Amino acid sequence: MTIPDVAELTLEEKASLTSGASFWYTKAIERAGVPAIMVTDGPHGLRKQREGGDHLGLGDSVPATCFPPAVGLGSSWDVDLVHRVGEALGTETSIENVAVLLGPGINIKRSPLCGRNFEYLSEDPIVSGALGAAIVAGIQSKGVGTSLKHFAANNQENDRMRSSSDVDPRALREIYLRGFQRVVEDAQPWTVMCSYNRLNGVYTSEDPWLLTQVLRDEWGFEGLVVSDWGAVNERVAGLAAGMDLEMPSSNGLTDAQIVAAVQDGSLDESVVDVAAGRVLDLVRKSTDGAGAVSGPLDIDAHHALAREAAGRSIVLLKNDDGALPLAKDAKIAVIGEFAEKPRYQGAGSSMINPTRLDTALDEIRALAMGEIAYAKGFSVAPGVSDDETAALRGEAVAAASAADVAVVFLGLPARLESEGFDRTDIDLPAEQLALMDAVLAVNPNAVVVLSNGGVVALPFADRVPAILEGWLLGQAGGGATADVLFGDVNPSAKLTETIPLRLEDTPAYLDFPGEFSHTRYGEGLFVGYRWYDARRMRVAFPFGHGLSYTTFAYGDAAAAVNADGDLVVRVAVTNTGERSGREVVQVYTSLPGGEVQRPERELKAFASIALAAGETREVSLTVRRKDLAYWDIRVDAWVVEGGDYAVDVASSSRDIRSSVVVAVDGDPIVLPLSRTSSIGEVMAHPVVGEIVQAAIAQMMSGMEGLDAIMPEGADASQMMTSFPIGRAGMFAAGEADGAITPEMIDGLIAMANAPTQG
Amino acid sequence: MTIPDVAELTLEEKASLTSGASFWYTKAIERAGVPAIMVTDGPHGLRKQREGGDHLGLGDSVPATCFPPAVGLGSSWDVDLVHRVGEALGTETSIENVAVLLGPGINIKRSPLCGRNFEYLSEDPIVSGALGAAIVAGIQSKGVGTSLKHFAANNQENDRMRSSSDVDPRALREIYLRGFQRVVEDAQPWTVMCSYNRLNGVYTSEDPWLLTQVLRDEWGFEGLVVSDWGAVNERVAGLAAGMDLEMPSSNGLTDAQIVAAVQDGSLDESVVDVAAGRVLDLVRKSTDGAGAVSGPLDIDAHHALAREAAGRSIVLLKNDDGALPLAKDAKIAVIGEFAEKPRYQGAGSSMINPTRLDTALDEIRALAMGEIAYAKGFSVAPGVSDDETAALRGEAVAAASAADVAVVFLGLPARLESEGFDRTDIDLPAEQLALMDAVLAVNPNAVVVLSNGGVVALPFADRVPAILEGWLLGQAGGGATADVLFGDVNPSAKLTETIPLRLEDTPAYLDFPGEFSHTRYGEGLFVGYRWYDARRMRVAFPFGHGLSYTTFAYGDAAAAVNADGDLVVRVAVTNTGERSGREVVQVYTSLPGGEVQRPERELKAFASIALAAGETREVSLTVRRKDLAYWDIRVDAWVVEGGDYAVDVASSSRDIRSSVVVAVDGDPIVLPLSRTSSIGEVMAHPVVGEIVQAAIAQMMSGMEGLDAIMPEGADASQMMTSFPIGRAGMFAAGEADGAITPEMIDGLIAMANAPTQG
Repeated sequence: MTIPDVAELTLEEKASLTSGASFWYTKAIERAGVPAIMVTDGPHGLRKQREGGDHLGLGDSVPATCFPPAVGLGSSWDVDLVHRVGEALGTETSIENVAVLLGPGINIKRSPLCGRNFEYLSEDPIVSGALGAAIVAGIQSKGVGTSLKHFAANNQENDRMRSSSDVDPRALREIYLRGFQRVVEDAQPWTVMCSYNRLNGVYTSEDPWLLTQVLRDEWGFEGLVVSDWGAVNERVAGLAAGMDLEMPSSNGLTDAQIVAAVQDGSLDESVVDVAAGRVLDLVRKSTDGAGAVSGPLDIDAHHALAREAAGRSIVLLKNDDGALPLAKDAKIAVIGEFAEKPRYQGAGSSMINPTRLDTALDEIRALAMGEIAYAKGFSVAPGVSDDETAALRGEAVAAASAADVAVVFLGLPARLESEGFDRTDIDLPAEQLALMDAVLAVNPNAVVVLSNGGVVALPFADRVPAILEGWLLGQAGGGATADVLFGDVNPSAKLTETIPLRLEDTPAYLDFPGEFSHTRYGEGLFVGYRWYDARRMRVAFPFGHGLSYTTFAYGDAAAAVNADGDLVVRVAVTNTGERSGREVVQVYTSLPGGEVQRPERELKAFASIALAAGETREVSLTVRRKDLAYWDIRVDAWVVEGGDYAVDVASSSRDIRSSVVVAVDGDPIVLPLSRTSSIGEVMAHPVVGEIVQAAIAQMMSGMEGLDAIMPEGADASQMMTSFPIGRAGMFAAGEADGAITPEMIDGLIAMANAPTQG
Repeated sequence: MTIPDVAELTLEEKASLTSGASFWYTKAIERAGVPAIMVTDGPHGLRKQREGGDHLGLGDSVPATCFPPAVGLGSSWDVDLVHRVGEALGTETSIENVAVLLGPGINIKRSPLCGRNFEYLSEDPIVSGALGAAIVAGIQSKGVGTSLKHFAANNQENDRMRSSSDVDPRALREIYLRGFQRVVEDAQPWTVMCSYNRLNGVYTSEDPWLLTQVLRDEWGFEGLVVSDWGAVNERVAGLAAGMDLEMPSSNGLTDAQIVAAVQDGSLDESVVDVAAGRVLDLVRKSTDGAGAVSGPLDIDAHHALAREAAGRSIVLLKNDDGALPLAKDAKIAVIGEFAEKPRYQGAGSSMINPTRLDTALDEIRALAMGEIAYAKGFSVAPGVSDDETAALRGEAVAAASAADVAVVFLGLPARLESEGFDRTDIDLPAEQLALMDAVLAVNPNAVVVLSNGGVVALPFADRVPAILEGWLLGQAGGGATADVLFGDVNPSAKLTETIPLRLEDTPAYLDFPGEFSHTRYGEGLFVGYRWYDARRMRVAFPFGHGLSYTTFAYGDAAAAVNADGDLVVRVAVTNTGERSGREVVQVYTSLPGGEVQRPERELKAFASIALAAGETREVSLTVRRKDLAYWDIRVDAWVVEGGDYAVDVASSSRDIRSSVVVAVDGDPIVLPLSRTSSIGEVMAHPVVGEIVQAAIAQMMSGMEGLDAIMPEGADASQMMTSFPIGRAGMFAAGEADGAITPEMIDGLIAMANAPTQG
C-alpha cells in the first residue's frame, strides 16, 4: 500500500488525521488510500479491545501474555532480557494487527505513593533510560511501534489531568528528562506520548519547549507525539507546540477548530502539514512493518518467557543463614491468600487479560517433594469480619507451627494500587502484619514473599530470616516464585528503588501530591537514593540491593577515558559460591570537591552478568561522557565539569566494592561578564582577571574600615568578592581621585566579552 | 524647623533627596531648609561612626551599650523586656542625634548555617513578628526611627548581592513575610530596608509587588523604604517599584539617572515626588522627635539592663539531678577561653563598640564564696600548635579533676560567624570537643556554657548533667552567666530555633546556599520545627524548649472565639517549685483533617509570665484570626479554613500540657468554574452541583468499561472526578445521543458563575 504525501490532502483531511477516529483507531481517508491504524494499551502485554466491547474499549480484551509489569521486569537490570521481552511483546502486537503498543512508561518513581509506580521502572534515570530503550528496541524490531510515556514529569495520579509539576531546571533535566532523552536517542520510539499534567504551569500537551525544542531540536526525535487519552487542553495550541495526534476521538470538534484557525490566519497551515505528515509517516511505518511476524501466537513459548522474566524480577532482600532456597523435601506451610490468588499486575489501562495464570501454591506443589500445607491466613476482600480474620489467622498459625518452614505471602490488595489514584501510606494491611507476628511466634523460620506494585514498609524485616520481594510478576509469577524458593532459579534481581524505613523519610513526603493543582518538586535532584545518601539516612534496603544464593567477589576496578570521551570501567568479578548465578555490577560516580552541587554518588552504568560457580570474568562498563554532565542554568546547556571523578564499582548503592579515580577534562565554559558579575568572577576571568587585580586591590584598600568589623581570622574576602562589579564604585573611594566610574566598569566588561582573535 | 513640602523643590532637588549624601547621612537642601539626617547601624546597640573615621564609616565607632544580639534577646520570648531594651536603644540613638537605628533584623532562620543568624530572632514568624514589633515600638517611643530589615527572604549570606530566593507563594506569605507583616501592622517602623537578594528572580530593591503592592497596599506601611547599603541594581526601576532612598551615596550618579528618566518621559515625575516626599516625611519625623531624650547616657543603668536582658537570654537546655544552680561555696574549675575572652556579639555591620565588657570569670569570682580555678583549655586563635592545644587541655583536665564541678565554656570562634559569609557546618571546633571528653573523663560533674550565634551540634549532650545555651549575650553577658550559674537569676529563656542532632537533618540541608545565584526554598512551609515534627524526627532540643530551676504545672486550657473573631485561650499555670521563676506559655494550633496542607502544629501565641514559688495565675493568650489563615494561591488571598482547630497549650513544641478543640468559622470562598474545573469540583459547586448530578451519572454510566480495569473495591470515582469538565464530552457517549457538547458545558459554567441575586 502506498501512503500518500501530505501535499495530496485537503486541509480538512489533514486536520482530520490529527485526531483519532475512535478510542483506538486513527482516521482513514479512503479517497487518498490512507488506512486507519490501531494503537492499544500496554505495555507489559497487549490490551486490545475485543470486537463488540464497550465504546471506550476499556473492557474485555483479547487474551495476551501478561509479562511482569515494569516494577518487576526492571528489577532484572538486564537489557538483553528486557529486549527479549520486548520482542515477544512486538510479536503479539504484530499478530493482532496493532500498529503501536502504548508503552513503555518510564517516569521516575518520585514517591512510593504514586499509584502508577508499578508501570514505571526506577527512581533512577539511567536505569529507566537504558531499560526503556531496550524494551522499545525489542518491540520495534517486530515492525510495530511504541509510545514512550508519559512525557513528562508525570509522577503522581492525584489531580493528574491538571496538576503542575513544578520542577527546577537541573532536576528536570538530570532526573526527570534524562531517561526520556536516552530512549529517544538510543531507540527512536515511533511515538512519544505527552502526559496529562502541566509542567511548570504549562500543559505538556501544548508545551512547545518540551515537545519541539527539547524533544525534537535537542534530542532529534523523528517520530510522532500522541496525546495521552484526553490530555488535550487547547487543540490548536497543542498542534502548534508539536502535539501531532490527539487521542481518542474528539468527534470532529477539534479538527474543525484546526481548520478554522488556519482559515482565520491564527495557525499556519504548515503546522498542520507537519503534524498530518507525521501521522502519515506513522501509518507508512505501520504498513511497512505489517507482516514482519506471522501468527498464531505461541502461547507456551511466551508463557515460558514470562516465567523466565518473572524469575529474574524477584529480589532476594534478605537471606540469613541460608534460609533459602528451601529443601524440596521440607515440610512447608504456604500461608497467605496471594499464594492462590496472585496479584500479578496493576489496575487501569495496563490491565492485561492473560493467556494463562499460574499460582504459587500450585507451582510449589508441583516442585516440592515434601508435605505442603496451605492456609489462606487473611482475606483481601472488603468487609471481612474480625472473627473471620481471627479464624484465618488461627488456621495459619496452626499450619505454621506444624511445618519446618512457613512461606508467608504478603502484599498489597489490588484495590490500593491502580492508575487513577495514589496511595496514602506504604503500610501492609494491619491483618497481614498481625498474621506475620502470629506466625513468627510459633515458627521463627518464616520466609516472606511479597506481592506489591509500590514499595511497602517492612516492620518485620529484622525478625524473619528471608524476604523475597516479588513485586508484580505477570501471569507466570507463580511458577517463578516456586523456582526461586526451591533454588531452581538463583535470584539475581536488584532494587531499582529504595525501600525506606518510613514514609516520613521519603524525599517527597512533604510535597506529594501537592495542592491546588501544583506540586513542588522540592527535593530537587535528591530523588530516591540520592536523598538518603546525601542526608545520611538509614533505609530498609538500599537502591541496587539484591542477594543471590551464591556470592561474588570484585577485583580492583580500572577506568580510563576512551577516544570518544566516554569512561570505560573494567573490573573482574568472580562467582565465589557453589552455584551459578548472575550479578548486577553497578558503576556510580561523584566529583568530590566539585563546584557544582551533586548527589553523594550517582549510578552511571550497570551490567547483568552470568557466572558459573567459580568463574571469573572481566566486565567492561561504559559511562557515557554525556551522563557525567550536569545541566548548567547559566548557559542552559549540559556541561561536564572537569576534575578527578570518583568511580565506585558496586554491588549496591551502599555496597561499594572497588573505587578508582579518573581525571576528566571539563567542557570549556566562559560566561560573559556583566555589571552583575561578582568581583570574584571578574578576578577569575581569563581575559581581564589579571588586568583588574591592581584596580581591585586599590578598591579593597579603600575599604580599610571593613577590618574593624570583621572577626580576626575571618575570611572577609568572601564578603568583598561577592559584590557585583557594577556596584563597586559605591564602596570605593567616593568622590576622591581614583573613583571607579561606570564607564570604567563598562569598558572592562566590553574588553572581557570581546570576541577573541582566532 | 519646618520641613518644606515636596512641591517646593525642583526636580533635581527631589531626585537628590532619594540617595544618600555619604555613608550615613541623607542629603541636605540648604536652600529649602532641609537638613541632613543621620542613620546608623545597629541593631543591638548603636554603631555610630566616630568623626574622622574611615570614609566608609565602618571602623571605630562611638561607645554604646551592647545589648544581647537578637539570638539572645529573642530567647526571652518576652515582649515587655524586648520593649524596654528597645527604649534603651532609642535613648542612646536620640542622645547621639541619630535619626534611625538600622534594625531590627527579623529574617527567618531557614538554615543554621546562615552567617547572620545571630542578628535574627527565630525560625518562626510569630516569634519574629511579635518580638520585632516590640523592639520597634520601644525604639520609636524615644522619637527616633527603626529600619525593619532585610525585606525580604534574605536568609543567607552566600552570594547575597545577587542570589534569588526562589520561594513558593504559601511559604513566602506564611513563613517569610508573616513576621514583617506583623511588625508593619503593629508598630509602623519609620523605615523598611530592602534586602540585597532577589526574590523569585527580581531584586527586592526593584520589586513593585513586594515594595508597593504587598508592603503598602496590603499591609498599610506608611514609612519609607531604604535600600540595604549597595542593594540598588537599577535605580530608576527601584524608584518606580517603591524603593525611596538609596544608601549610601551614589556620588550623584543615580540622581542624574532619575532626572534624565523624567526628562525623557520614561519615569513619571509623580514617582519622584512620592519618594522625595517620603524622605521629607522622615526628616520631619526625625526633627520632631529630636530632643525627646536628654543626655548624657546613663551607662550604669544601661549596663544593668544589658545584664538583666542577658540573664533572660540564657537557655537552660538540660539540668539533670539539679546540677545547677551551683553552690556558691563549691570548688569550681572554670574552663575555656570564652570565660575570660567573651564572645558576646557577632561580626559585621552590627558590631558595637561596648561601653564596658564583663567576663564570666570575673563575675563568677565576684559571686562565688569557694575556690575558683581557671584553665584556658583551648585557644581560638588561629595557628595554635597541637602541642600547645594538648598542654592547654592538660591544664584543664588537672583543674577539673581537682574541683567539685567543672564549668566548661565552649563556643564558636568569632571567625566562623559573621555577616558576609555562611558557615559550612554546625560543629564546635574539634579541640573543644576533645577537651570536653577529657574533662568528662576525670570529672563527670561538668556543666557546659555555650557561646555561639548559630546553633551547634552537641554530641556530648547525653553525657553532661547540665548545659546553658548562652548564645551571644552582649557586654554584660559575663555577669548574667554568673547570675544564672549560681541561681541569682532563675533561667527562663526558651529556644526560638530547633537544635538539630545533625546538619544533615536540617530542612534546607540540600539547597543551602544554592548555586548559580538561585536558592530553591524546597522545604516550603516546613521550616524549623515544622519540618522535624512533620517528618517525625528526633532533635537535640526542640523549638520552645528551656528549663527553669523551678517547675510549672498547667491546668486545663479553655478557648473560645471572641467578638473580633480571635481565639482567646486561657490556662492556669502554677509554679510548683521552691523558687520564683518565669514560664513561657506557648499556644500551637492545627486543623486535623483540614483540606489544606499544614504543619503538624504551628505557634500562634505566647506569653512570658513571672510566678512566685507556689503561685498560680490564669494566663490569657490571644490567637489572632488572621494568624489562623493560610495563603490560598487560587484566590491570592489569606483564607481561614473553617473547622475544629486543635489548640495545644505547651511548655515547648514537644511538651504539650493541655489541648482543647475550638470550632472556627471559615472564610467564604467560592471559586469560579471553568472548563478546567474538575468534575468533582462541579459536583460540589453550590449553584450547579445538584443540577449536574443526573448528567454526570449518565456520563459515568457511559463508562462501563472502566469497571473492567479497576480493581475490586477500589475508589474509581477519584479517577473520574478528577477529569476536567471541559474534556468530559470525549469520554461520554461519543457520537450517540446524549453526548455532552462544549456548548452544554459552557452553559453550565455560565450558570455557575452568574452573580447571585442579592
